Amino acid sequence: MIDPTLIIVVIGVAAFAISGVIAGARQDANILTVLVLGVVTAIGGGTVRDIILNIPVFWVKDFTIVWIAILSSLLAFLFSSFFRERIWKILRYADAIGVAFFTVAAINKTLALGHTGEVAVIMGFITACTGGILRDLLTGRPPLVIASDELFVTPALLGAILYVLLLDIAPQYTTQWSVISICFIIGFRIIAIETGLQFPKWLQMRPGKQAKK
Amino acid sequence: MIDPTLIIVVIGVAAFAISGVIAGARQDANILTVLVLGVVTAIGGGTVRDIILNIPVFWVKDFTIVWIAILSSLLAFLFSSFFRERIWKILRYADAIGVAFFTVAAINKTLALGHTGEVAVIMGFITACTGGILRDLLTGRPPLVIASDELFVTPALLGAILYVLLLDIAPQYTTQWSVISICFIIGFRIIAIETGLQFPKWLQMRPGKQAKK
Amino acid sequence: MIDPTLIIVVIGVAAFAISGVIAGARQDANILTVLVLGVVTAIGGGTVRDIILNIPVFWVKDFTIVWIAILSSLLAFLFSSFFRERIWKILRYADAIGVAFFTVAAINKTLALGHTGEVAVIMGFITACTGGILRDLLTGRPPLVIASDELFVTPALLGAILYVLLLDIAPQYTTQWSVISICFIIGFRIIAIETGLQFPKWLQMRPGKQAKK
Repeated sequence: MIDPTLIIVVIGVAAFAISGVIAGARQDANILTVLVLGVVTAIGGGTVRDIILNIPVFWVKDFTIVWIAILSSLLAFLFSSFFRERIWKILRYADAIGVAFFTVAAINKTLALGHTGEVAVIMGFITACTGGILRDLLTGRPPLVIASDELFVTPALLGAILYVLLLDIAPQYTTQWSVISICFIIGFRIIAIETGLQFPKWLQMRPGKQAKK
Repeated sequence: MIDPTLIIVVIGVAAFAISGVIAGARQDANILTVLVLGVVTAIGGGTVRDIILNIPVFWVKDFTIVWIAILSSLLAFLFSSFFRERIWKILRYADAIGVAFFTVAAINKTLALGHTGEVAVIMGFITACTGGILRDLLTGRPPLVIASDELFVTPALLGAILYVLLLDIAPQYTTQWSVISICFIIGFRIIAIETGLQFPKWLQMRPGKQAKK
Repeated sequence: MIDPTLIIVVIGVAAFAISGVIAGARQDANILTVLVLGVVTAIGGGTVRDIILNIPVFWVKDFTIVWIAILSSLLAFLFSSFFRERIWKILRYADAIGVAFFTVAAINKTLALGHTGEVAVIMGFITACTGGILRDLLTGRPPLVIASDELFVTPALLGAILYVLLLDIAPQYTTQWSVISICFIIGFRIIAIETGLQFPKWLQMRPGKQAKK
């Protein structure tokens, strides 16, 4: 039987690779540049996760996942011209899917190493966001994770907490809780994108006059 | 008795968490976004330090410090509206305090692992600056460490060298040297902020005509 | 006899240190700021390489290479004013040289650890590009690796693949293949800079109307 975490990782990698390729569109990048962006976005989060957890980086041991990232990037490159008008919306959707699947995969891996639920929440969040942060930094944009007008951090963070809590209550339903948490993160994020959902005013920063710097 | 390094780390974490929250003000961030900024700023430097030193990352073993970062961030969020006008000055002050305390803490940790004084100076500097660099990159600003008009690098670097030299001359006075070095870094940096202190012209870069890129 | 990889690393470190110092010119940086930029650019790539490969970071064990980076940075600072007009071209040339030498050095190190050719190609590419990426992020520029109009990724990536293939065919000619691959990367990149070489249209991204964000 196929390891469910593997399926989750593959979907997450493909989604992030696509988002990386789309991000390259802004620079009128060529095929190799977008390949690099796709692969970095796809494997960046997991790389940082393994480094922080002090375990061998996953793709150094098994290169398969990098081939999946390369293939997804090439397909995204080929089909990108079909989506001209909606390309920036697709970036955000692909990002949401990648975030959701990586959060769950990273929490599974962290808990399997015997770390606490708090550490698992943080690792899920870091893994999910780092690929997209690297993508945005490489393409010279303020990271979507912070700069985005819509809620971005909230679905990922609440989804990570939800998944760890559900696993704590009933550890035997890993697959069900995975599906629920992934749907929660994607659904919450897409609703936020579509409706421009915002926190109430009193939970937002009210800075004074913007300093010049 | 409480470990003096622990006190130093806690103050550094709190100061950086506050600076991270303030940095979020630019994006009209919500409470969870600033929480992420605060925590990343607070634990980013120490995380990179432990990764480079090839030892387990401190917060994976003991989550307490992350709770301190979360709590400091929430408090900074609540009180941020009281400081509207002076908020950007507070960012620089909090940053100076964080830099000073983290420099000393990282040097202590690096020397305790048996590394040389040179490595300790570099690790002190990296640990002190990385949190703030991550904060600035996440909020889409050129890192304060390089872009700042005032002297930034100088106090941290000279303070790190001073502390390692003092420890080399008289290792038994760790606490005294810590206090002196922390005061040196904070004092030097604040004087630089307040007076616009600059290097003499011949120690500054004189670039030719700025290229378009 | 001197280890050829050591010579390669030293030249790469010096070239990247110079490019880091030049990048500092944009901020009217002082001598210590450019020193930091030079050293980070020079040792950043190798640091990330060793972290991903899960081996002790090279400069923590042997500080010599950092002294070379510091010395190169100081020399670059002293002589920078002689190159006013051509300073941005020199940045790109120094970067090309650093990329070429670091690609080969990192592939040698990765293969010596028993990893596969695919991993070696990726590690060569990451090591070669990370120093420059850190330099560009610290100075608030979109990384040259992606934003550059000329071909940047292509020479480094193809050079890495070429070197691994040559080593696979005839492992006994390490030195010859090193020289050929380094010349290939530098030559290809400089031709791309001088002629404005581009990929054919159908291998470039054709994004739709640029979104506002």
